[in-house]
Amino acid sequence: MSEDPRTEDLGFARVDLDRAARTGDPEVVYGAGKTPEQVGILRTLHAKHPDRAVLATRLSAEALHAVRELDADVDLVARAATLGPVPEPRGSVAVVSAGTSDAPVAAEAALTARVHGAGVHEIRDVGVAGLHRLLAVRDEIERVDCLIVVAGMEGALPSVVGGLTGVPLVAVPTSVGYGASFGGLAALLAMLNSCAPGVTVVNIDNGYGAGVFAARVARRTAHSTSSEPT
Amino acid sequence: MSEDPRTEDLGFARVDLDRAARTGDPEVVYGAGKTPEQVGILRTLHAKHPDRAVLATRLSAEALHAVRELDADVDLVARAATLGPVPEPRGSVAVVSAGTSDAPVAAEAALTARVHGAGVHEIRDVGVAGLHRLLAVRDEIERVDCLIVVAGMEGALPSVVGGLTGVPLVAVPTSVGYGASFGGLAALLAMLNSCAPGVTVVNIDNGYGAGVFAARVARRTAHSTSSEPT
Amino acid sequence: MSEDPRTEDLGFARVDLDRAARTGDPEVVYGAGKTPEQVGILRTLHAKHPDRAVLATRLSAEALHAVRELDADVDLVARAATLGPVPEPRGSVAVVSAGTSDAPVAAEAALTARVHGAGVHEIRDVGVAGLHRLLAVRDEIERVDCLIVVAGMEGALPSVVGGLTGVPLVAVPTSVGYGASFGGLAALLAMLNSCAPGVTVVNIDNGYGAGVFAARVARRTAHSTSSEPT
Amino acid sequence: MSEDPRTEDLGFARVDLDRAARTGDPEVVYGAGKTPEQVGILRTLHAKHPDRAVLATRLSAEALHAVRELDADVDLVARAATLGPVPEPRGSVAVVSAGTSDAPVAAEAALTARVHGAGVHEIRDVGVAGLHRLLAVRDEIERVDCLIVVAGMEGALPSVVGGLTGVPLVAVPTSVGYGASFGGLAALLAMLNSCAPGVTVVNIDNGYGAGVFAARVARRTAHSTSSEPT
Amino acid sequence: MSEDPRTEDLGFARVDLDRAARTGDPEVVYGAGKTPEQVGILRTLHAKHPDRAVLATRLSAEALHAVRELDADVDLVARAATLGPVPEPRGSVAVVSAGTSDAPVAAEAALTARVHGAGVHEIRDVGVAGLHRLLAVRDEIERVDCLIVVAGMEGALPSVVGGLTGVPLVAVPTSVGYGASFGGLAALLAMLNSCAPGVTVVNIDNGYGAGVFAARVARRTAHSTSSEPT
Amino acid sequence: MSEDPRTEDLGFARVDLDRAARTGDPEVVYGAGKTPEQVGILRTLHAKHPDRAVLATRLSAEALHAVRELDADVDLVARAATLGPVPEPRGSVAVVSAGTSDAPVAAEAALTARVHGAGVHEIRDVGVAGLHRLLAVRDEIERVDCLIVVAGMEGALPSVVGGLTGVPLVAVPTSVGYGASFGGLAALLAMLNSCAPGVTVVNIDNGYGAGVFAARVARRTAHSTSSEPT
Amino acid sequence: MSEDPRTEDLGFARVDLDRAARTGDPEVVYGAGKTPEQVGILRTLHAKHPDRAVLATRLSAEALHAVRELDADVDLVARAATLGPVPEPRGSVAVVSAGTSDAPVAAEAALTARVHGAGVHEIRDVGVAGLHRLLAVRDEIERVDCLIVVAGMEGALPSVVGGLTGVPLVAVPTSVGYGASFGGLAALLAMLNSCAPGVTVVNIDNGYGAGVFAARVARRTAHSTSSEPT
Amino acid sequence: MSEDPRTEDLGFARVDLDRAARTGDPEVVYGAGKTPEQVGILRTLHAKHPDRAVLATRLSAEALHAVRELDADVDLVARAATLGPVPEPRGSVAVVSAGTSDAPVAAEAALTARVHGAGVHEIRDVGVAGLHRLLAVRDEIERVDCLIVVAGMEGALPSVVGGLTGVPLVAVPTSVGYGASFGGLAALLAMLNSCAPGVTVVNIDNGYGAGVFAARVARRTAHSTSSEPT
Repeated sequence: MSEDPRTEDLGFARVDLDRAARTGDPEVVYGAGKTPEQVGILRTLHAKHPDRAVLATRLSAEALHAVRELDADVDLVARAATLGPVPEPRGSVAVVSAGTSDAPVAAEAALTARVHGAGVHEIRDVGVAGLHRLLAVRDEIERVDCLIVVAGMEGALPSVVGGLTGVPLVAVPTSVGYGASFGGLAALLAMLNSCAPGVTVVNIDNGYGAGVFAARVARRTAHSTSSEPT
Repeated sequence: MSEDPRTEDLGFARVDLDRAARTGDPEVVYGAGKTPEQVGILRTLHAKHPDRAVLATRLSAEALHAVRELDADVDLVARAATLGPVPEPRGSVAVVSAGTSDAPVAAEAALTARVHGAGVHEIRDVGVAGLHRLLAVRDEIERVDCLIVVAGMEGALPSVVGGLTGVPLVAVPTSVGYGASFGGLAALLAMLNSCAPGVTVVNIDNGYGAGVFAARVARRTAHSTSSEPT
Repeated sequence: MSEDPRTEDLGFARVDLDRAARTGDPEVVYGAGKTPEQVGILRTLHAKHPDRAVLATRLSAEALHAVRELDADVDLVARAATLGPVPEPRGSVAVVSAGTSDAPVAAEAALTARVHGAGVHEIRDVGVAGLHRLLAVRDEIERVDCLIVVAGMEGALPSVVGGLTGVPLVAVPTSVGYGASFGGLAALLAMLNSCAPGVTVVNIDNGYGAGVFAARVARRTAHSTSSEPT
Repeated sequence: MSEDPRTEDLGFARVDLDRAARTGDPEVVYGAGKTPEQVGILRTLHAKHPDRAVLATRLSAEALHAVRELDADVDLVARAATLGPVPEPRGSVAVVSAGTSDAPVAAEAALTARVHGAGVHEIRDVGVAGLHRLLAVRDEIERVDCLIVVAGMEGALPSVVGGLTGVPLVAVPTSVGYGASFGGLAALLAMLNSCAPGVTVVNIDNGYGAGVFAARVARRTAHSTSSEPT
Repeated sequence: MSEDPRTEDLGFARVDLDRAARTGDPEVVYGAGKTPEQVGILRTLHAKHPDRAVLATRLSAEALHAVRELDADVDLVARAATLGPVPEPRGSVAVVSAGTSDAPVAAEAALTARVHGAGVHEIRDVGVAGLHRLLAVRDEIERVDCLIVVAGMEGALPSVVGGLTGVPLVAVPTSVGYGASFGGLAALLAMLNSCAPGVTVVNIDNGYGAGVFAARVARRTAHSTSSEPT
Repeated sequence: MSEDPRTEDLGFARVDLDRAARTGDPEVVYGAGKTPEQVGILRTLHAKHPDRAVLATRLSAEALHAVRELDADVDLVARAATLGPVPEPRGSVAVVSAGTSDAPVAAEAALTARVHGAGVHEIRDVGVAGLHRLLAVRDEIERVDCLIVVAGMEGALPSVVGGLTGVPLVAVPTSVGYGASFGGLAALLAMLNSCAPGVTVVNIDNGYGAGVFAARVARRTAHSTSSEPT
Repeated sequence: MSEDPRTEDLGFARVDLDRAARTGDPEVVYGAGKTPEQVGILRTLHAKHPDRAVLATRLSAEALHAVRELDADVDLVARAATLGPVPEPRGSVAVVSAGTSDAPVAAEAALTARVHGAGVHEIRDVGVAGLHRLLAVRDEIERVDCLIVVAGMEGALPSVVGGLTGVPLVAVPTSVGYGASFGGLAALLAMLNSCAPGVTVVNIDNGYGAGVFAARVARRTAHSTSSEPT
Repeated sequence: MSEDPRTEDLGFARVDLDRAARTGDPEVVYGAGKTPEQVGILRTLHAKHPDRAVLATRLSAEALHAVRELDADVDLVARAATLGPVPEPRGSVAVVSAGTSDAPVAAEAALTARVHGAGVHEIRDVGVAGLHRLLAVRDEIERVDCLIVVAGMEGALPSVVGGLTGVPLVAVPTSVGYGASFGGLAALLAMLNSCAPGVTVVNIDNGYGAGVFAARVARRTAHSTSSEPT
């Protein structure tokens, strides 16, 4: 069973080396609950994909320290790291976030989209309680190939953005809030019930999933000249 | 026990005749689950308060028919009826609703606020997916003494309105939606988690409660000339 | 307020005539809870967009009958209708569904994607309990620009499909099931927690939302020759 | 984008300097999850609004210590701080709380209402299991312009108070309780279902939101001579 | 197996004829979902316990009609019936209910307590929004051996009653309400979290269970002269 | 795609003709939501498996009538039908149910186990509130190869049976109950938390799933002489 | 307001000195979240009720240490303390618990019942998975005036005990369990849905509430000679 | 009461020494919340069953250390320990797990099945997002007498495995995941709604329960030569 060249058996894990062939993107290290040693799997992935950055997310402080020793690039806000060169961007993604507390999720989404080959533009702190901030960036929103909209609390931002533009939009609810937010459930339900047509949703705090999806859409679209927006 | 002049014993109910003295507003007939005969309690309340309209809400088709026989005024959209003259309006309330399906709840709120003594202005179908409709009525929203904002689905409208104005705002989630709306739970949670400061919330579909509250605020404020806005 | 050319006031509704300019797609009639008369709004939309099909979804039997009188094309499985010519397809979408009971949601997704300008290929009844049926259509899945994957009960199909391909994938949970399915909640939660990277999700039974989103992705991509797959 | 005078970009946040013009009240620092350095944003707000106290809530012990260094006034029970002079009170608010464990939420509500310009009267420990304590303060309740009623556990106090008076009433459920309190859900649901007409509700433990709302009502009403009640 | 004299096998059911010997009370016919024929089991129970009324609850209109043919006494409000003489009352129970819509549950509780041997006193429509009605019957509440307190919506009545007296108190939440009442969940949670010491709770709408329990307490206590209160 | 001999394409469904080869048991018709015509798929399955009964479950009254026309054997309590000869029993299963209202689920489990090749013994109405009924059948429980234990309400029966015997036990929660039963959720949770070791659980009301599983265990075990117990 | 002799104002709390007169039992110190200093309120209560033990529950390790300094008697298992002489027992209560992990809740119930004047008999570790342990103590269960039955996980014990005896029974769900126990929710729902008639329920882990209630029933009953059972 | 030879009273616990006679398997020490001293109960069980390993699960680091002093064999991944010789295997069980984070639950299941007398084969890291890993071990899955399938997140693996084979299958949801996984609820619901026939489920993270059940099935089946598979 372990002779399959599509799989590398590390004892505690069987790395899916075939994933890039199958889906276009290599496997990613999901760091939650992993020891710094286990996060070392990042090196295995890098050896298999030397010309393309591989990614580790949800890293503890200890794991972030450990991967820095591996010469990985560390993103402290996103609590993530990459090893190897980030691809030349094709297509563009905007990551729009509602409040300052949503920053870690937005950063994970942005880094993931970059590692998966898209150019990324970040627009922060444009929550619906101050609409002028959002309306001021309307042109920036319209220009990209895919939108990621990140919000906690009542999760209203995707509905408002989705009413302003027809750019494909992925909404990310965050666990920012308290009481009847129930750990992000309120924002999740709001986004699933958006009255704006064509809003799709990922799990609470899942910046990674939104980043993969948006990069795939952007790479395929690439209707702009693919240079990273400023 | 039944000699108390503050209570009238009808066998199946003890009407709280003292409520107007205590709270400023007479008791109201909550018609859900009541037979047309039981809704006749409206006449008892009218006899006690002849110079001021009394209200029956959540009436079945049969009960609406029955109260019409009592010379009550019937509001088919609100599924409610009044008996007696509506008070001269003091202060003003705007009822702002997101979609056409929210009409029954908005109508219940509007009628209730009128019966409880406020002038009412209705602004319909200004959901957040088409912001221009809301921004076009911004002045009307700013002019009143209290706002009632009615929305189903993701319940985002109160956050957007609450970011535009400091007028006291009562949000009413409606059961409009399907699937993960869970009968209005999504809108309720969204409104409770609004990032706009000072948004308060009532039960799902509770136009009545919002109407009572807003009228009480408006009557006390009455900073305008109290004429009904157009 | 009603003089705004972007809005047509029908009394019970204010039609957002500006939506196509803003988002690329005209407003759609959401028929749930609407009377056959109210569904007549479809004619207003058609008059505004004569060269492009407009859509009404979630129609009751009575409303389906009524719109047929308007010369609309009726899709009985999707419980939906269109008025006007369906656009020439650009890009392609595959609608993959798990079981026969998911047919109405899959049909709504397929019709919506067509009306919004994409070519659509339908792959039915390939639930995970008989993997050979899915593996047999792997090539068809790989060829399209965006995937819609529809499943009820445990909602496992998107994870399996998402592990086979890197095509952008929108998952639609359905309310098919009983007991601890809780009206589609089980499938919804499963899809939100998919271990396959890049799966996004819409509301339970929301074929319409998935169709809009997927068509937008496909239209932008259009990397194939856009002819409808067979 | 950052040249807009209505916004100040601090790197990690864009302060909404326009909020006071738009809503009558400046932005507030929500301290949960913020470092002591980030709470320093309070100084930015104070510089913009030197003649009116600005507020920071939900401060950690470290942040409370840090803001004290800024010459802010610290309220240890409310875990909040203000910088600048509290406005002359207009109108009056009573904060009525059920038990001693509700003190932090009640204190946050009281401080917020004062900072937002209302006179505040606090009535503590009048839970429904000892009605004589509540009935003894009935006159004090009747005299104010707006009531804030704070309770955990079964959340019954707003219903009892709301049956005694027609003063506008905002209910605040708290997370006080255990087991089937589910972090304040029991109190929240009870308050949303209050049989007393005209009770509105804010999020669990949201003393801040209740304080903003009540102050707005009180400021507008100001039917008394606005002197702080004793 | 079927020879056991403690059990009578009716084909579709095995009647527990031993229950009265074991627990002091015969089995009861729970009529929900039973056909009128199946409710005929009441006759079997009566034959076994001829000198003591047996009870059938939750009867459909058809079943009520059918048991009337058996010479059973029918209680239309409680949707229940008894066959045989009600026992001489020992001890007393008061059934206190909050609103008119709670009447069916209160009636089931009262009839059950009578059939199980207690004297019963009914106090109706004393909800907490009009405290004077409750305070007027305080003496009646104090006099009995066990209290049953029935309320829907926010379920506050047991807390208020439980603060006035040390009489053992069983609370019955009802499904009266809408929206965030969630079929009686709000009242149930409130009662479980009562701040009044010594409140116990039964299932939503379970007047029967409360009646059995209260009668058992009252029969054992019997400190009064056991005559039925008026 | 449709040439695969493992699949028969009926237009609205693709029948998995390979399932018996793969898993030992042919596909089953799940009748919920299917028209009488669609249930006719039973004939297709019978043609493929002429020497072994095929099964249709959850049939409406109309569908039961329709399949009777196909010469199917109908089980009215189970709302199910079979076509073809039931297999010779190998191994034995006991279906133990708590109350008379659980009969339909128990009957579905029993019929399914028979169709899947096990001998079945049914033990009815042995709920835990009358333990003598259960203790009287202890030997019958001990003798079989697999137990199915069916209960609604508090779902306690599997824990009690599981403490008496080491026979493999599958628990089936039913939706029997009201109020805080929440459609069988209470019984489901209870069974998942059973303190008796080795209790496994299926979905609410899923007699079918329990029957398949138990028959598979019994067929493999077959330690007795496989004659149907009496 | 503070002159009322029924209340003693301690600054952070208003002690309800009238409670014993009103309900027969003095107020109790609920220690959760209270500092050791605040728990000193126990001395105030003792001074008011010198001839009768007063109780503090849910004490932290620090608070237990502090009250020991006050010469209070400390129960480490129950995490509670008493000050003053425990009353002469009238009537008897049995506290029956399912597993060793339920010990703290059972101990709180037992101590509370003793402090409230009942004799108490404790029966431990008689869970339903080993019925012989329960059947062995059947006589002890039958002899008392009120039963408290404590169980976590599936919460089945009250149904089994309630089927064996007609003694009034209060069930206490505990938070013992994991996964789908959801902090005691599974046991709570099971007990609310008990098929044994006359089971009442208190909040999760609420040994105190059950103890107060049971003692009240036992004191009133006192049909035995009130000597503490062995 | 304590003279019963079926029970050993340890003060804090009554050990059920009769369980092996009744069910075939001795009692097990559930270590959660137990002190290292209390886990010493393992020695009591070993003395009673010297020729057969006894098991302690859910051990803290301290308890693992303590039992090592008793010469117990410790499994660090499973956080469990055994004392005494593991039985000769009869029949075989495969433990199939989806991801590396599921390892502790899978290890608990495997150890439990071994202690309960079955041969065990472990297949790790074959999640559905890389189907080739699962298809590669299809023969190994087909060969055993009972399957345990362990998965977190969306819990899809049991459905896929259950569609490939007719071997009896017990699914174990794990708490692996975040956000809308709700501590394993998503995986639990998915498994309960599996479209593969004959899947049964245990509590979240309950490797122990699955191990007991599967071993019982395997021991009874023992159709192979019972040698441990490689």
